[in-house]
Amino acid sequence: MNVLVLNCGSSSLKFKLFSGHHLKVVAKGIVEEIGRSKSAVKFYKPDGSLIQQDSTEIRNHLEAIKVVSSLLSFWEIVPDLSQLSGIGHRVVHGGEFFTGPVLVDKKVIEQIKTLIPLAPLHNPANLTGIQVALEHAPQVPQVAVFDTAFHQTIPESSYLYAIPTRLYEKHGVRRYGFHGTSYSYVTKRAAKYLKKNYKCFSCICLHLGNGASAAAVKNGKSMDTSMGLTPLEGLVMGTRSGDIDPAIIPFIARNLGLSIDEIDSLLNKQSGLLGLCGESDMRTIEQRVETGDDQALLAIDIFCHRARKYVGAYMALTGRPDCIIFTGGIGENSSFVRQKICQDLDWLGIHLDQSINHKTKGLSNPATISSKHSTIKVLVVPTNEELEIARQTLAVLEHIDLEGAY
Amino acid sequence: MNVLVLNCGSSSLKFKLFSGHHLKVVAKGIVEEIGRSKSAVKFYKPDGSLIQQDSTEIRNHLEAIKVVSSLLSFWEIVPDLSQLSGIGHRVVHGGEFFTGPVLVDKKVIEQIKTLIPLAPLHNPANLTGIQVALEHAPQVPQVAVFDTAFHQTIPESSYLYAIPTRLYEKHGVRRYGFHGTSYSYVTKRAAKYLKKNYKCFSCICLHLGNGASAAAVKNGKSMDTSMGLTPLEGLVMGTRSGDIDPAIIPFIARNLGLSIDEIDSLLNKQSGLLGLCGESDMRTIEQRVETGDDQALLAIDIFCHRARKYVGAYMALTGRPDCIIFTGGIGENSSFVRQKICQDLDWLGIHLDQSINHKTKGLSNPATISSKHSTIKVLVVPTNEELEIARQTLAVLEHIDLEGAY
Repeated sequence: MNVLVLNCGSSSLKFKLFSGHHLKVVAKGIVEEIGRSKSAVKFYKPDGSLIQQDSTEIRNHLEAIKVVSSLLSFWEIVPDLSQLSGIGHRVVHGGEFFTGPVLVDKKVIEQIKTLIPLAPLHNPANLTGIQVALEHAPQVPQVAVFDTAFHQTIPESSYLYAIPTRLYEKHGVRRYGFHGTSYSYVTKRAAKYLKKNYKCFSCICLHLGNGASAAAVKNGKSMDTSMGLTPLEGLVMGTRSGDIDPAIIPFIARNLGLSIDEIDSLLNKQSGLLGLCGESDMRTIEQRVETGDDQALLAIDIFCHRARKYVGAYMALTGRPDCIIFTGGIGENSSFVRQKICQDLDWLGIHLDQSINHKTKGLSNPATISSKHSTIKVLVVPTNEELEIARQTLAVLEHIDLEGAY
Repeated sequence: MNVLVLNCGSSSLKFKLFSGHHLKVVAKGIVEEIGRSKSAVKFYKPDGSLIQQDSTEIRNHLEAIKVVSSLLSFWEIVPDLSQLSGIGHRVVHGGEFFTGPVLVDKKVIEQIKTLIPLAPLHNPANLTGIQVALEHAPQVPQVAVFDTAFHQTIPESSYLYAIPTRLYEKHGVRRYGFHGTSYSYVTKRAAKYLKKNYKCFSCICLHLGNGASAAAVKNGKSMDTSMGLTPLEGLVMGTRSGDIDPAIIPFIARNLGLSIDEIDSLLNKQSGLLGLCGESDMRTIEQRVETGDDQALLAIDIFCHRARKYVGAYMALTGRPDCIIFTGGIGENSSFVRQKICQDLDWLGIHLDQSINHKTKGLSNPATISSKHSTIKVLVVPTNEELEIARQTLAVLEHIDLEGAY
């Protein structure tokens, strides 16, 4: 029993191999700069130590998957990809077609293709990954796991924007939400950790990384999330603006003479923390705060202010949640950010134990950082999207319910 | 002692005359279709009954103000505009220059001019109103009252968008917020009604009309509001979308081939309730709900869902508020909307008395609609922007503190 998880970008292929029913990681790696004269291959042990590193020309994704196959064979991990139990693919956009993971067949491939206008940067690359894996290992069942699927339970009143309905009906303009694989993993893990039945479990989850979003989960179902049609909406991110007055776009077009593509790029790549303080990595920004850098502190204040508002907003949707969950690179590691987000929310039942909060970093298991006075627990739950993809792949292949796994 | 309040639009001039230190309304009216061959003049008693109605050509705003002057003289209300104690002007955008009402002088006029790029539809018309009033009654002191001024207390972490800081520094792109005159009036009125010192008064205020916004007030100061650089951001409105994924704009440009101006118009004039159900007036939409119209119900659900999220978001900013305030045409009159927004928020201390809520409509004084179990009071407070402009005008002219007036 082994499952290979593939995350295919336009010029990269990340892979992780899981083995046995407990899905232990046995190897992982990445092929980068595919299609360039010098592509990079890195192959790691489960603990992250490098096994092998190469720089060679890899012309396309089919060649890249052959390299992955050779590596796994050379190091005697899997004799051949055809020996795999299954391959799980991360697919960013599942639109309204997919409410969970699916076995890949021709129809699924066609459906993922029709969603390309909604995810022009991601779905084509994800499809390429599926196609080369099918070509290289046609007998191995392949499963597509969608970033959007978890949020397909969001009700109409929350996923519809207040724009002419034809934009939804004819062009699919609605809130889809992303980070679904992460939310699925951490919310189930949190429910198990708190010994709650997932079907009765409610929480507000903050996935704070370079991409950042929030989700409201009520009775085990996503009720709302901050990312929308695309991953631009919602929280402040590394380089993305999150929420703005939409009229800022015409304002910039008129007053600065930028094109719509330039503004799109400005909001996605030059905004967020980067736009506010010239730096997108929260670790570096926190270091600057320690040296008394006001611009860095302001960037964090804006980041946390936005996140607080989403916590409050989602409390109005979930009823009293069982917990608030922090996950993602920043959520798991920045006690400063967690403290700022939860500050002065005692009256809403949220109270951190500062000493535990400050010690909590780089965990591999869930931890409670709220004090005993906190009626709503606050947890840090490390996410693991690849493991969740492997689990969902296994669940599809073996027709099993996964809830026991968390 | 009499104060004329003017609200000047691009082809209209609304006026209301207040008299005595208690600022009783003595007359009001509107000149519409200025600059067209058939302009309309309507002149009313304080109770709203029509005194006089004319249809004649009024070529410009100077002619319009002369008509107002003649009407007030003819009906022996004010012999001449030069006899007024002051004229108060509604000005939409005060940018960062104005944190309160000001006596109009050359510098003020210049400052309002420099803000035209931020309010290209409103500030030019408001300026025209000031200029013709100055021309017609040069001896009368004129006061500008800004829709944005109340929100100038909002902290940086809330007014800055997560976009490159040069857009704020060089082009003034930030959250300004609007409906400030209404918020100033209803929050002070609510504080007085609840016998609270305004400086210690905190509330969440929903101004729900054809334009709709929310504000978080802490210790008598605006801490955040849902409208932003322009009045497009935030709640669902009659024809405005409010919050959307900003990436929807490039998506529409690419997939529907609309220009930036067409999209701007789509979001401002064809969206909101109108875009969702073909109707922008909440009263008509509610009537459709009563006949079992699902599309109308969905539009209201989306409207209320968005408002609930702002109530929750602002609770995370204000600490426990003294009250939630409903105001504006919808807020004052729709018990259905109020009930949907407050539904299932008992655990946050918000609980309506349904029977009182349903009876509350068309009030002239504040009323409590929460039940005795509600730890946070819920009020309906009728707004009165013209009276607030008159009061602020008087306050500037007589250098008095207004707090006793509410």
